[in-house]
Amino acid sequence: MSAHPVLIDGQWRASTGTTVFQALNPKTEQVLPDQYPVSPWAEIEQALDAASAAFRRTAGWHGVRFAQFLECFADKIEGRTDDLVEIAHQETALPVSPRLKEGELPRTTNQLRQAAAAAREGSWSLPTIDTKANIRSYLGPIGPVAVFGPNNFPFAFNSSAGGDFAAAIAAGNPVIAKGHTSHPSTTRLFAELALDAVRETDLPPAWVQLIYRTSHDDGAKLVSHPLIGASGYTGSRHAGLTLKTAADAVGKPMYLELSSINPIFILPGALSERLEAIADEFSGSCLMGTGQFCTNPGLVFLPGGPSSEAFVDAVAKRFQAAAVGTMLSSGVQKNFLDAVNSLQACGAKLITGGTAGGGTGVSCTNTLLTVDGDAFMANPEALQAEAFGNGSLFVIASNPDQLPLLAERLEGNLTGTLYTATDGGDDALYEKLEAPVRQKVGRLLNDKMPTGVAVSPAMNHGGPFPATGHSGFTAVGIPASLRRFGMLQCYDGIRPHRLPMILQNAATESKTWRLIDGVWTQGGI
Amino acid sequence: MSAHPVLIDGQWRASTGTTVFQALNPKTEQVLPDQYPVSPWAEIEQALDAASAAFRRTAGWHGVRFAQFLECFADKIEGRTDDLVEIAHQETALPVSPRLKEGELPRTTNQLRQAAAAAREGSWSLPTIDTKANIRSYLGPIGPVAVFGPNNFPFAFNSSAGGDFAAAIAAGNPVIAKGHTSHPSTTRLFAELALDAVRETDLPPAWVQLIYRTSHDDGAKLVSHPLIGASGYTGSRHAGLTLKTAADAVGKPMYLELSSINPIFILPGALSERLEAIADEFSGSCLMGTGQFCTNPGLVFLPGGPSSEAFVDAVAKRFQAAAVGTMLSSGVQKNFLDAVNSLQACGAKLITGGTAGGGTGVSCTNTLLTVDGDAFMANPEALQAEAFGNGSLFVIASNPDQLPLLAERLEGNLTGTLYTATDGGDDALYEKLEAPVRQKVGRLLNDKMPTGVAVSPAMNHGGPFPATGHSGFTAVGIPASLRRFGMLQCYDGIRPHRLPMILQNAATESKTWRLIDGVWTQGGI
Repeated sequence: MSAHPVLIDGQWRASTGTTVFQALNPKTEQVLPDQYPVSPWAEIEQALDAASAAFRRTAGWHGVRFAQFLECFADKIEGRTDDLVEIAHQETALPVSPRLKEGELPRTTNQLRQAAAAAREGSWSLPTIDTKANIRSYLGPIGPVAVFGPNNFPFAFNSSAGGDFAAAIAAGNPVIAKGHTSHPSTTRLFAELALDAVRETDLPPAWVQLIYRTSHDDGAKLVSHPLIGASGYTGSRHAGLTLKTAADAVGKPMYLELSSINPIFILPGALSERLEAIADEFSGSCLMGTGQFCTNPGLVFLPGGPSSEAFVDAVAKRFQAAAVGTMLSSGVQKNFLDAVNSLQACGAKLITGGTAGGGTGVSCTNTLLTVDGDAFMANPEALQAEAFGNGSLFVIASNPDQLPLLAERLEGNLTGTLYTATDGGDDALYEKLEAPVRQKVGRLLNDKMPTGVAVSPAMNHGGPFPATGHSGFTAVGIPASLRRFGMLQCYDGIRPHRLPMILQNAATESKTWRLIDGVWTQGGI
Repeated sequence: MSAHPVLIDGQWRASTGTTVFQALNPKTEQVLPDQYPVSPWAEIEQALDAASAAFRRTAGWHGVRFAQFLECFADKIEGRTDDLVEIAHQETALPVSPRLKEGELPRTTNQLRQAAAAAREGSWSLPTIDTKANIRSYLGPIGPVAVFGPNNFPFAFNSSAGGDFAAAIAAGNPVIAKGHTSHPSTTRLFAELALDAVRETDLPPAWVQLIYRTSHDDGAKLVSHPLIGASGYTGSRHAGLTLKTAADAVGKPMYLELSSINPIFILPGALSERLEAIADEFSGSCLMGTGQFCTNPGLVFLPGGPSSEAFVDAVAKRFQAAAVGTMLSSGVQKNFLDAVNSLQACGAKLITGGTAGGGTGVSCTNTLLTVDGDAFMANPEALQAEAFGNGSLFVIASNPDQLPLLAERLEGNLTGTLYTATDGGDDALYEKLEAPVRQKVGRLLNDKMPTGVAVSPAMNHGGPFPATGHSGFTAVGIPASLRRFGMLQCYDGIRPHRLPMILQNAATESKTWRLIDGVWTQGGI
């Protein structure tokens, strides 16, 4: 069987690459039959040239054109729900229902439609007009965007359909998708549907292109190429930072979403008030999706004393009783076991789990480790190494007053959570913890687990390095996520008829919110 | 005479450094008497610790506190106008009047007051509330900011009083100023006044700190230190990129404003319509301030033919007739002459100038070079090397149709300008040029020179690499410039009384514009 073609400039072309790869069904541990190519540099360069020409062609187009594409694409995805769910299930072992069919797929089409609405409406771009000086600015398209999708969300973060894809397109940029090698057939089906939608809505043929795999060097060349506008990457820290280094060296924006262990602080009052309920909540959150979420709670700080011990016991029981999920790949399994071993080498004690198996196919037993606060203080970096999967490390403080000191040792994370008593008994300690935790996380939560990431305009799925590459941006949440893929464009004394519509005097047809002389308004001048 | 002390944690302390430096009066070419220290790392680390403690102390403070400081500081600056102008004149040779006294100083206090207004009002931080999901976010302070000021604006971009300083403070962050070594006494006086204002408005003593000089290695350690939030840098490309590499490696945002040669395209119709007027405008813009502006027009594209030759002659005459200004330093002079030599080595022809002297003290004759379009096409990178000073390179296209091809070769710049006929005769060519030029510049202009940078909410003093490090941000223009120094902070299910005031249900006292459920409003929920 020959390898599947790549999508370049509106055509499915046989790859000129000589190396192929195949995905694995993690449940059966069988290699899947489809062969996919590793694209050589010449092929990637063709995609860059085509994307650049497409981008030039759309200069000045109104966002409504990109909105039409995104909505058409969302419709097509819904028309192929069963196929997408089936293929993704084979490639990832994620449950068909409700996870893929009722959860991730509707989330994906919802994102595409929200991005379409933002593109049509336009205020994501912060149009700003100073009538006195006749200076006008907004975030315009930045150029072709390379999107690298992760393994853990075959739909919602897919390089050819997910959040970065939707944001880049809605901001007016063509996308070069680099699919994740663990689910190439899912990505291919998305790209087929995207190409149909490109044709139907009359966008340039190169608006969506797909390659499946590149060498590491070629990935670095892609994100730092003169024709690239920006890149979005969701995945492992090591690979992401290698790409970031290349992009940074030539000033190409690269938005990363890397590892995060999402610390949770459970304060003494909360623990004595509702230990069992929190143990339920935590176990559900930590084991959901076999723990393979960027916002999985991988680090829990407890105040010490008998109630902390009781909490460890309560969670251990639940972990032992819970079903063991299948992992996304044998790579995930190996990294998880390696991380659990490393944590133990740093003094963490294995309470339960820590072994391969326990579930169908590629799996590891639900894993709980503990370490005391002093040990964490002595070795905070190693004890924050991510164990991506169904496990968590509990840090047991010597006393509640140690919690703020532990918080000071945190690395950057996507989320941070504080559980407190409802009667105000934890308020003094909360005040001490709030600042150090908040400054290290993108999203602060009270009394709820962080695994739900609502597609809300106020969401931040971002945070300080090394959770991401820049704490000012979010990967989820529309319209904010679009701003990653805009460049600030200012028009100074430009003759009125040459201005983009969104900066002309008249109100826009879509009643865009614009900041005119310091006032946000949907009206004209 | 012993070296001046540095400002650490609210106290002027004798530096522990053993090396000193002195500034030069560029007009007299005499070394100025004051000695300033090169700070060793231990001293910089003290500043970092103090700034970090100060930042922690102000967690949750309302912007009004920072506004009060900025306004108090602006008042104090105005009270010392004559001293500041006199010292800056000695250190930079910039004219007392109107440049320093009526131009740059009022601009500086205006920036501080605009930043204060933005801090008080709050909507720079894009507060966004989703009432249904109860998720709320805004740009909160990012942490201590290191500001590196340039040589060419001793007031408006000064590390202790300029645009980056004002933006960082207004966004709620303490500043560690690294003064430019060419005007240390100016910077010292600003820091003295800032410290007075810090005390009067009861901010933490370490809110503004000052060191004068560091080793290159220590500068890199500063911008990449765990306690730093972000850095702002205005200056030379080489030094800036070295710092950026260090900051990027650990994901610390670093905003740079580097070299820019600000291309101007003069289209055939404009040239035949108003050649002499444009020659006047151009010469004034290019020689103003001895050409030492980031937005100086250093590269002009002409359509070719007799009118282009006439334009070269017209400008050459004006350059020869105009007074030659004093340069900021002997370093500027040397770099300018080196750059002029390099351009000639790449085939550029010297029309006038190109020699040292011609003015009082450190100076170079007003310099005009030309090169033909084909030579530029063959060697675009070398022919875009910045010659910072009173000179410009004219690229003479073989015909008007070559102009869009030349535009494709442009590097990233702060500005790009198109001069066109008023009768619409250049419109077809404008359409071909607009997209390639706009995508390479932060600010596009029609029929006006780029040297004026209005402090307008719609201004963009930014642009694609290598003009800056990220095309999404601006160094001038309030409120946008503040957003560089904010991190996106999201509150998910946070109990109401723990929310920052700006995200609580009630409208804020200052009637902050907030995006509530998709609608910009000054009201509450």
